Parts: sequence; C-alpha cells; structure tokens
Amino acid sequence: MHAPASQTTAPVRIADYLVERLRQHDVDHVFGVPGDYVLGLFAHLEETALTIVNTCDEQGAGFAADAYARLRGLGVVCVTYGVGGLKVANSTAQAFAEESPVLVISGAPSRAERAGDTLLHHVVNGHDNQHRIFERLTVASAVLDDPDTACREIDRVIDAALTHQRPVYLEIPRDMTLMEVIRPQPPVPTVRHSDGPTLAAAVDDAVSLLRAARQPVAFLGVEAVRLGLLPAALDLIERTSIPTAVTPLDKSAISEQHRCFIGVYGGAMSRKPVQEYVESSDCLLMLGALLTDLNLGGNTARLAPERSIHATRHQVRIGYRTYDRVRLEDFVAALAAADLPDCSRGVKPEAPAPVAEWQPRPETAMTVARLFERLGTFLSDTTVVIADPGDATFGALDLPVRQDHDFLANAFYASLGFAVPASIGAQLAAPERRPLVLVGDGAFQMTGMELSTSLRYGLNPVVVVLNNGGYLTERLIVDGAFNDVLPWDYTRLTDLFGGGRSFTVETEEDLESALAEAGASPDLCLLNVHLAAADASPALHRLAEGLGVMAGSRTA
Amino acid sequence: MHAPASQTTAPVRIADYLVERLRQHDVDHVFGVPGDYVLGLFAHLEETALTIVNTCDEQGAGFAADAYARLRGLGVVCVTYGVGGLKVANSTAQAFAEESPVLVISGAPSRAERAGDTLLHHVVNGHDNQHRIFERLTVASAVLDDPDTACREIDRVIDAALTHQRPVYLEIPRDMTLMEVIRPQPPVPTVRHSDGPTLAAAVDDAVSLLRAARQPVAFLGVEAVRLGLLPAALDLIERTSIPTAVTPLDKSAISEQHRCFIGVYGGAMSRKPVQEYVESSDCLLMLGALLTDLNLGGNTARLAPERSIHATRHQVRIGYRTYDRVRLEDFVAALAAADLPDCSRGVKPEAPAPVAEWQPRPETAMTVARLFERLGTFLSDTTVVIADPGDATFGALDLPVRQDHDFLANAFYASLGFAVPASIGAQLAAPERRPLVLVGDGAFQMTGMELSTSLRYGLNPVVVVLNNGGYLTERLIVDGAFNDVLPWDYTRLTDLFGGGRSFTVETEEDLESALAEAGASPDLCLLNVHLAAADASPALHRLAEGLGVMAGSRTA
Repeated sequence: MHAPASQTTAPVRIADYLVERLRQHDVDHVFGVPGDYVLGLFAHLEETALTIVNTCDEQGAGFAADAYARLRGLGVVCVTYGVGGLKVANSTAQAFAEESPVLVISGAPSRAERAGDTLLHHVVNGHDNQHRIFERLTVASAVLDDPDTACREIDRVIDAALTHQRPVYLEIPRDMTLMEVIRPQPPVPTVRHSDGPTLAAAVDDAVSLLRAARQPVAFLGVEAVRLGLLPAALDLIERTSIPTAVTPLDKSAISEQHRCFIGVYGGAMSRKPVQEYVESSDCLLMLGALLTDLNLGGNTARLAPERSIHATRHQVRIGYRTYDRVRLEDFVAALAAADLPDCSRGVKPEAPAPVAEWQPRPETAMTVARLFERLGTFLSDTTVVIADPGDATFGALDLPVRQDHDFLANAFYASLGFAVPASIGAQLAAPERRPLVLVGDGAFQMTGMELSTSLRYGLNPVVVVLNNGGYLTERLIVDGAFNDVLPWDYTRLTDLFGGGRSFTVETEEDLESALAEAGASPDLCLLNVHLAAADASPALHRLAEGLGVMAGSRTA
Repeated sequence: MHAPASQTTAPVRIADYLVERLRQHDVDHVFGVPGDYVLGLFAHLEETALTIVNTCDEQGAGFAADAYARLRGLGVVCVTYGVGGLKVANSTAQAFAEESPVLVISGAPSRAERAGDTLLHHVVNGHDNQHRIFERLTVASAVLDDPDTACREIDRVIDAALTHQRPVYLEIPRDMTLMEVIRPQPPVPTVRHSDGPTLAAAVDDAVSLLRAARQPVAFLGVEAVRLGLLPAALDLIERTSIPTAVTPLDKSAISEQHRCFIGVYGGAMSRKPVQEYVESSDCLLMLGALLTDLNLGGNTARLAPERSIHATRHQVRIGYRTYDRVRLEDFVAALAAADLPDCSRGVKPEAPAPVAEWQPRPETAMTVARLFERLGTFLSDTTVVIADPGDATFGALDLPVRQDHDFLANAFYASLGFAVPASIGAQLAAPERRPLVLVGDGAFQMTGMELSTSLRYGLNPVVVVLNNGGYLTERLIVDGAFNDVLPWDYTRLTDLFGGGRSFTVETEEDLESALAEAGASPDLCLLNVHLAAADASPALHRLAEGLGVMAGSRTA
C-alpha cells in the first residue's frame, strides 16, 4: 500500500512518492505494457491503490491515458524503454497538440548500465536519446537518476503538466524505483497571475465590442474545458444570452440543448445556417478555442480576426491588438463579472427539428446520414460519444450531445485509431458513462484489437464500425487502391476475444434491432455497419463541396 | 511509369527521380499507410513499377520494411506526417540498432503551409519537429524543400543508408512531390578505404594469434551478412576449418549443416558443450558480430576481450589494441587472402543428433521443447524462420537452419511484435521463401492483425502462436497479473479476415496433423499452440538457470 501523505522529512521510496502524488491528483489507473526495465515499477504499482491497465500494444495505452486525462485532469502511461517509449511518441504528440495532461513514465536501464558501454537491448544511439526525443513532445521532462532531486523532479514535472495542460515525461532508471530518499518539502504549485491593468484593458475593450455588436457570437473552446472554466463561461453566456457555437474539437463544451447553443462551426462542414450566422457575425468572442485547419474545415472557415476577441491560454487578442500576460482563467472570470450587455440581438439560426422517434424503413440499405440520425436518438445522459477522425467525426458533428464531457474527438491532431483505446480510458475515468465509439474501418484495423482490453477490464462500450472498405476521406481527395482495406467480418471479433456481442447491420431494420439490443445489454457490443464505398455524412458532403473535391473520386 | 535512368540534365520530377534510384537499388515494394500529406506521392507511386503495400497500421509497415531491407539490401516505409511518422519511430530505432538500411519517407505540409502560422493537423511543436526527432534515429536525413538540391539530397541520404547500413529519413513537403527539377550529375557513391599499413598490422597480429591458438573459434556476425561478406568469410572459415559459432542475432549467417558450424552462442542460453567450447577458446575471431546484452544471455556471456579479435564496421580490436581506419570489408578480405594456419585443432563440441523423424506421442499435451523439436523437421530449403523476441527466439536457437537468410530475429533491440509484419516484408523480398513465423501470444496481440495484410497480398506464412496466456520471459523475472494477456481464440482470425486456415494445437498429435496440412497448403496457416503458463524452451531454461531466476515465478 502506498504511504499516506506526510509533511515530515521521513524517508520515502521514489515509487511511493510518485504514487502518492498521482493519487492526490485523482489518478486511479495507469495504462501500459510491462517490459523488463519497468517490471519493478509494475510489480510495485500492483501493491498500491493504483490499478494497472494492460493494453495489447503501447499505442493503445497512450491513447487511453490521453482520454483519461481529458476526463480526470491527469492521465498516466507507463512503459518500458525504447520499444515502449518510442511507441507512445505519436500519442504524446497528440496530447501536446490537443492540450491533454498526460504523464509518460518510462522505465530505463539502471544508472550502472547507463554508465557502461555495453550494447543494451531497447537502447539506441546513447542513453539520453529517448529523453531528448520526448523533450520535443512534452513541456517538462526529467530522468530520475539523482536521489537528492528525484522527488522534486516528480513534483516539477506533474506541476508542469497541470499548468500547461500538456504531456510530460519521467524516465526512471530501474535501480531508482524503490530507492529510499528524503521526502522533500511539500511542493508549491505554480500560480500565475495576470497583469492587472492589461487584464482590465482587455476586458474593457471586449465589453465595448460586445456592446456595439449587431450580431455577437461566442465560441466555447477546449482550453476552457481543460482549465475548468465552464461554470464561469456558462454564467457569462447565460447572463448575456449570447448565441454560442463550438468547433468540432470543442463539441460538448456546452450542452446542445442549451438555449444559447446554435451549432457546431467547422467552416464549410457546418450546417449552412450556422455557417452563415457565424461568418456574418460582427463580434466573435472565442474563449479557449483552438483555430486549427482540419477542425475548421480545411481552409473554408471565414472567421475575420478584425471582428474577433480570441482568448487562449497563451494570449488574448482583440482585433489586431494583443494583450500579453492575461491568463485565460482571469479573462473569463473578469469578463463574466463585468457589466455585460444583452447579446441576443441576432436572429439565431434555426436548429434542425430533433428526431424524436426514428422509424426504420423496411428493406432499406444503411446510409451514413440515416445512421447518424438514429444514433442521435440513442444518446442518453450517461453516453460519452468518442469519434475517430474522418467521417466518424464529421458525421458525429450533428449528434445532439447533452453536457460537458459527452463528446471526445481528436479533431485537431487527427490520429486514426484513437477512439477504441480512448474509450478504455474514458470509461475507467468516468465509470458511470458508457462510451459510444464511432470509428471507420481503416482506423479500426489499427487499434481495434484493444477491445480485448475493454473486455479484460469489464468495460462495455457500444462500438460502431463504419464499414465502407477503406479510407473515405482520402478517397474524396485522391483515390487509389491504397485507400482500400481488406474487408474483415468485424462481428467475428467477439468470437476471437471470447466476449461481448456483435451485430451485422446492412439495413435500417438491422440497425434498429442492433441498437435496441445494445442499449439494453450490459455487454460490450460491436456493430458492423455496412456502407457504400462513397457514402458520406452530410457534414462531409458540405465540406467536400466547400473544398471543391468529391468529383475526383477514383478518377482523379 | 517512371523515367528511365538518364545521364542528361533533362528535367525530372522529384518523385520520379526517387523511384528511379530505389529501382536501381533493387526496391520493388514500398510499405505504408496513406494520409493526406502523402497522398500525392502514393497516387504517383501507383503509376510506377513500385508496388505499394498497405499495412493495417504504420508500425507494421516499419517492421515490414526492416525485414525487406535485411533480405534485399534496402527497404522503404512511406507514411504521412506526424500520425504516420511518429508511429515508425520505434521500428526505425530497431533498424538503427540492428543495422538495417531502411528509408523512411514522410509526406509533410507544403512549403507555403510550413511558412504560415496556422495550426495544422498532424503537426506539433513546429515544422522541424519530426525531422529533429528522426535525426536521433537515423544516420542521414533531409527535408526536400529546395528544388535545387532535392535530387542530390535523395542521393546523399540513400548512399548513407547503404554505407552505414542504418535507417535514413526523407521528408517531402507535399507541393514538392511532382515538381520538375534539373537532373543532377550522376551520384558518386561513397567509397571508403582502409589505412593500408594499419590493415596490414591488424591482419598480421590476427594471423599470429590464430597460429598460436590452442582452440580458436570464429563468430560470423550480422554485419558480415549486411555487407555481403559471407563468401569471403566462408572461404576463410573453410580454408582454416575454424569451428564457427553465431550469436542469436546472427543465426543463419552460416548453414547449421556446415562442417565448421558448432552452434549458437548466447552465454548461458547456449547448449552447454557450445558454451564451454567457446568460453574455453584462447582465440575468438569475431567477424561483424554485435556483442549486445540480451543477445549474449544477459550478463552470462564470458568472452574475454584479451583473447578476442573483434572486427566490426566501426573498428578492429585485437586484445586491448584497436586498429583505426580498418574497414570490416577489407579486414575480412585481407585475412582470407593471408597465409592462414589450420584452425581445426580443438575437439569440437558434439552436435545434437538431428531429429530425423518426429513421432507424436498419443494424447500428450504440447510442450515448448517438443514443439521446437518438431519444427526442426518442418524446415525446408525454402523456409525462412522469423522469430519474435522472447521464447519464440530462445526456442528457435536450436532449430537447424540451413543457409544464409534462413533466419530473422530482432535479438538485439527486441521489440515485441516484429515477426508477423516482418514476414510480409520477408516474403515480398524473397518470394521463393515461405516464412515460418514464431511468436508469443503477448507479442501477437500487438501486431497480429497484420496477417490481414499478408492475406491481402497473397502471402502464405505458417504462423505459430505460442499461446501461454502472457509474457513468459517476464514471468520468469518478476511476475504479476500484468504479465497476463486475455486468452484469445486465435483460430478465429481466419474467420475475421476471411482467408487462410487455422489449427488448434493442444496435443502432439494435433501438432503433427496441423503441420502436415500447413506444409501441404498453399494458404496462410495459423497454429494456435496451447502451452502451460510456465513452460519454457530448453534455451530459456538454461538462461534462467544462468541468471539465477526462474525460482521467482509468481511469488517474487
């Protein structure tokens, strides 16, 4: 069992100190794959209050930890050196891009081994190589090779993850894991302050713009979610009644049943009335939104900077003026506390009529559009939708999600294969939620075997495989045989794994009965939804039209 | 179709120049997964003489290219930026460690995109980030962002891969792919010379030692294989009749039916007579062998440097003296041409009696030892054995392989999950060979889905899954639930993929009939071989005894 928190200077083992700190930050699970350089730590963790979650491959552990971090505030992936560490380089890059505080722990050769010149397994190009690589993928990193500083370095690195909401890296030489060291003084977490007069000027200027605006629109962004600013931001939104949009990456930052919600904005992939309303706004109040390319429909977004108040973790920018040393937290709080005008002046775009009851059409083949219509009625207050990049995300943009944390997508970094392992992290982080995983068949072939991990740990996602025989989004750009994948019979996975239930969905009636059974079942359920090779969601059709592609399929 | 080689200065498209150079180096296949930054190159490759091989995940493409490189002399993996590139960081590190010339080609944002400040999908921490990471994993790299130097850079980077037998990296901004540039003068490949007098001194000293030795032993190593030195080295071995061993990484550098072959040496995991013979030798002539930890049985090897002539690509070392600027190629050639003594003075260790005909014992459960005995009789002149790390490799050490390139294992870097994707690269590189893939169940769960790729491209490996419910080697070091994997019914994979044949093997009779059918079948065959959780090969037993572990299972 791990030692209780203590203010004394009694000796503590490095691994115990690490566990203690992780527990203080609400971490209950560590995702990883064992290997000899990290076996001592795994064996030790097994004796603590932390639960080790073994994935099939390290890639899955990295994505699971990312999703866990998004819901819990900190996620941990624990791997061996080289063959483990380098396999989570990509998931760590994603966490960096999308501001997810993931701690990567890598075992490593002992200090004696590092000092020698033997060629060691899993080690390439010097003992600092993996550390140097992770310096480029994290905001803080340390090799715990010094007993005098190890605990402080743990504190520093975890603090950086929380301060910057980005991944960090700890490398533990295997002889250090259980070493007893002097407990350091309790850490002093980083507290950053805004510059008062600059903050006041930024708020004044923002209020003036909002007051003068004919048709203001707010964006509630992922940084506001990560920093826990939703209550203050929602207070601001409700007091002003400002029509509020989200980008795909931010979807579910505000309930889509909220009276102020107008829709998901992603350039040309938006619903037309939403796109027009946002783009004709004369004052965009963007709170923590990341303006990234794919997330805004390629280059189809028209968000004029001269009409924008864009507040991020790094800067507040109003029109062409920037306000330095203004923290997003302080800006949102101060703006919410300011004397704000009513902002409901525009005529909001009409929301699509909700599909109250979906009726399957007899003997009608499934289409992407109809699939997402039906999925909209499948959502409940306990669903968390997890969408893989591509049409699984595009199609999901129109799903009427309800509350904060109802939707996870890696719509900025867009690494295929995120959704299945993310559902493991998400359900362990929020056990009251049931993941609805939306994933294309190409992406599913990358990480779908991690459903084995879901079964092993008693998780029960509903997994919808959009089976169209290949990479749809790429087919629309430049097509060739390289966009095809071998058609698997995905329903056989439950036989392979020896658990869960699976359903073949070819018609609307198949979908209806499969979702009815899946909704009622306590088991992991997989739906293999057969779709035409070129069928696309309404959002992807809109995007393709906006980008002027889609004509090029196969013959480009 | 790609342009023919030409000495003119006519314009050439960058992609055509690249294809031309690859074809000149015997490359017929490119392994990868498409993504939008590299779609233009994929579409172009599809029109050339190169065949694109789509794997399920980029990791599989990286390992396949590594195996292809080992058999063909150059392998190519082609991926998109970030989500593709970073997923092959680990396989590239392996190629670096084990000296395999793999060219990593990554698509990238266009030059205009790189010059802008938009947040782009797949891009993290600056546009030079992936390049900087791959500089740490390769011996040469270039971003082809300059039309004036692009072709020369291609030449320089490919030349470095061949010169150093290590991976290299090319990043192609997507607007450059089809750009027409001036064809450069034909490249002048690097030619390196040894220092003549130093070479002569090294050869003289080596000959003196061999002449004085009571019991000389040669090691034929992987660097001799990569550099094509086997004919000269075998000439030397045969003229001197020197007893010759290999390490696990080098297995099959010499036929195990060769009169001079004495066995595989890997410290304590060697057969006892081999270990004793090697360790009592007073003159070890090691030609291109890499002395790495795991490959030599952890720290159980006893190869005294004072009795060693150790020639590698980087240095010749005799006893405690080093000879700089002596190339391995020149040393082997000069030594083979020297006036050499007969070296057959020792009494060679007795080889185990070959199992001529293996008789299944009725109703007897499979054991690892009996499995490998039977596999020894399954080998033919067209088999290439590919062993994953762990007991799949340890057990395979006693397999009587026949000729150069009969055996592939990543026994130095030891990344689990190599064998299945490696079999794709190996069989495409040498289509007359049929891979026999040996893989533990833990490793199989990482990359086994790449058998889908094998089926897609009409390949027919025989895949033996050593199914003991977890990570055996780790169980012997420190055990815990984290060493278990969910038991899959691996035979269901052929249903999932819709091709191939599968067999459940629980008894010796099951094995006999499964191998008889697999040997006669033209299809991909998968054997799910059930083994007891703690059952280990004779080599692993010897290693565990040498390391003093094995007692610790579960209760450590």
